[in-house]
Amino acid sequence: MRLTYKGSGVDIRAGDEAVRRLAPLARQTYRPEVLGDIGAFAGFFRVPSGYREPVFVASTDGVGSKLRVAFLTGRHDTVGIDLVAMSVNDLLVHGAEPLIFLDYIGIGRLTPGVVEAIVRGVVAGCREAGCALVGGETSELPDFYPPGEYDLAGFAVGVAERGALVDGRAVKPGDVLLGLGSTGLHSNGYSLARKVVFERLGYRVADRAPGLAQSIGEALLTPTRIYVKPVLGLLRAGVPVRAMAHITGGGLTGNLPRVLPSGCRAVVRRGAWPVPAIFGFLREAGRIAEAEMLRVFNMGVGFVCIVPSEAASRARAALEAAGVPTWKIGEIRRGARGVAYV
Amino acid sequence: MRLTYKGSGVDIRAGDEAVRRLAPLARQTYRPEVLGDIGAFAGFFRVPSGYREPVFVASTDGVGSKLRVAFLTGRHDTVGIDLVAMSVNDLLVHGAEPLIFLDYIGIGRLTPGVVEAIVRGVVAGCREAGCALVGGETSELPDFYPPGEYDLAGFAVGVAERGALVDGRAVKPGDVLLGLGSTGLHSNGYSLARKVVFERLGYRVADRAPGLAQSIGEALLTPTRIYVKPVLGLLRAGVPVRAMAHITGGGLTGNLPRVLPSGCRAVVRRGAWPVPAIFGFLREAGRIAEAEMLRVFNMGVGFVCIVPSEAASRARAALEAAGVPTWKIGEIRRGARGVAYV
Repeated sequence: MRLTYKGSGVDIRAGDEAVRRLAPLARQTYRPEVLGDIGAFAGFFRVPSGYREPVFVASTDGVGSKLRVAFLTGRHDTVGIDLVAMSVNDLLVHGAEPLIFLDYIGIGRLTPGVVEAIVRGVVAGCREAGCALVGGETSELPDFYPPGEYDLAGFAVGVAERGALVDGRAVKPGDVLLGLGSTGLHSNGYSLARKVVFERLGYRVADRAPGLAQSIGEALLTPTRIYVKPVLGLLRAGVPVRAMAHITGGGLTGNLPRVLPSGCRAVVRRGAWPVPAIFGFLREAGRIAEAEMLRVFNMGVGFVCIVPSEAASRARAALEAAGVPTWKIGEIRRGARGVAYV
Repeated sequence: MRLTYKGSGVDIRAGDEAVRRLAPLARQTYRPEVLGDIGAFAGFFRVPSGYREPVFVASTDGVGSKLRVAFLTGRHDTVGIDLVAMSVNDLLVHGAEPLIFLDYIGIGRLTPGVVEAIVRGVVAGCREAGCALVGGETSELPDFYPPGEYDLAGFAVGVAERGALVDGRAVKPGDVLLGLGSTGLHSNGYSLARKVVFERLGYRVADRAPGLAQSIGEALLTPTRIYVKPVLGLLRAGVPVRAMAHITGGGLTGNLPRVLPSGCRAVVRRGAWPVPAIFGFLREAGRIAEAEMLRVFNMGVGFVCIVPSEAASRARAALEAAGVPTWKIGEIRRGARGVAYV
């Protein structure tokens, strides 16, 4: 028997077909900085006009085990939104405007429909974030992933005016923490959530949990909120945002200290915002300690902006007007860098 | 029993430990454009000085099933070189100088020693390519990858002067194809190679194949050559390179046409360069057709520069002086866009 590449598990033609389907989707996201007709091996972009001293900001992230919920439900068109959200919200923390995005898909069997659904989600996320999908790689790896399974990695580059970079150094005691609402778990804590829901409770994705308006699969698959437009709007309106944090793995407990100067302590009032029902359900069903909940899940706050107290009400109103539920969740006090819950 | 995040398979402390080990490695790669002390959520860089109209070029790629050879040999400090090579050689095709790199590691069990070895390879690749490792993500996904296994994705951004971008449009009949030597399979064709070597022949990685100076594991794990320094040297010396191609999946057959204008055909002389022994061994052992070999493997030519015939000897001498074996492997003739082997 002669061996061919297709016989060894990799189908170059199926890959070509997927690329053909994806190119028009990617073009929907192009912005003026993208130079689209140069070459085949990479994506091209230029410095946006209007920046005097542009600084580029780059970030990478994946979606993690939330992907398993997509495998269980067979719904693959939303995890791409999560993929974009995870990276662009990280750029946003520093005040950067997302410019470009690239995706990597490692997949067990290159089914064009599945890859197309994934990329449709990526495109939707890029449109929401205002960045261009200028490249990607789909790698068929039958010995790495079972049929129907995949892993995703995303890469984003943004730009900020050097003098307008947000880095947390200006945070002062008395500043207010604004908590921006999450849509649910976002893309963190799924190893624990899945253990509770599918192993301990034996739920299937179509089951309804007590207190939840959706099926458990729908609740767990809700895409991560992309905070780019509301937060850039805030910055462009001149609100003096002193620090931001994207609440990912580690929760408020782990992520807030990353942007605090030494001598500043975040005091978070636990009753200051409504915790979505999914978190209470997970806590009860898993008998998870409250401190652990706050270290693993976002608990309803997916992004935090730290502003001077005199700007807090205006900032909150602007974020709410942009469609993001926002609460004053606490303030900065003098103390050891860290988070105290009261 | 109370559930904790560590009990669900994800160890945040092990992740923190890995990050602590990796930061000094990444700093070894910094270049003047990197702004290293700004923030914790992303990497920062500015436009290099000396560019009048800078164009940024972005690419992403993985290493594919070559990683399984690393799993089999237990050697994890070279696949990071492959990861960097796959993306930066793609940027180089357009004449861009690599600036920054980010890596994504999806891994079954976060063993700090393994992650550190992977990142050591990434750092070695970045140093060779002259780009800075400004970020990365290591995602512990026990339900995706068995212990000891992982997938990698890399992301590179480079910069080129707009007027100096290389896109193949200037290619003309009579131009010469310079083939730059590969170090072996580079990072493509491993699904087929592994099927031949490990399934058909039943080899183990420590076995020696007839005609090979190394063990089969060493031969298959040889890192992909990074062509950045020799090729940028060529461009900076003013050699009018009209097109370049990175010979990856698809071989010369699939990759050369991507940079040819219509009406130009690449005529490749099969006897013009020495094909490394590993390819002959794979062809014989797998009884693989010659056309299939040329469509799957680089066959000893990992990168191609297309230059005017009058510049060919000077360009070849410069590449050889920079340490890359280089041959005149063919020329451009009038004809349908594609590759003809003679």
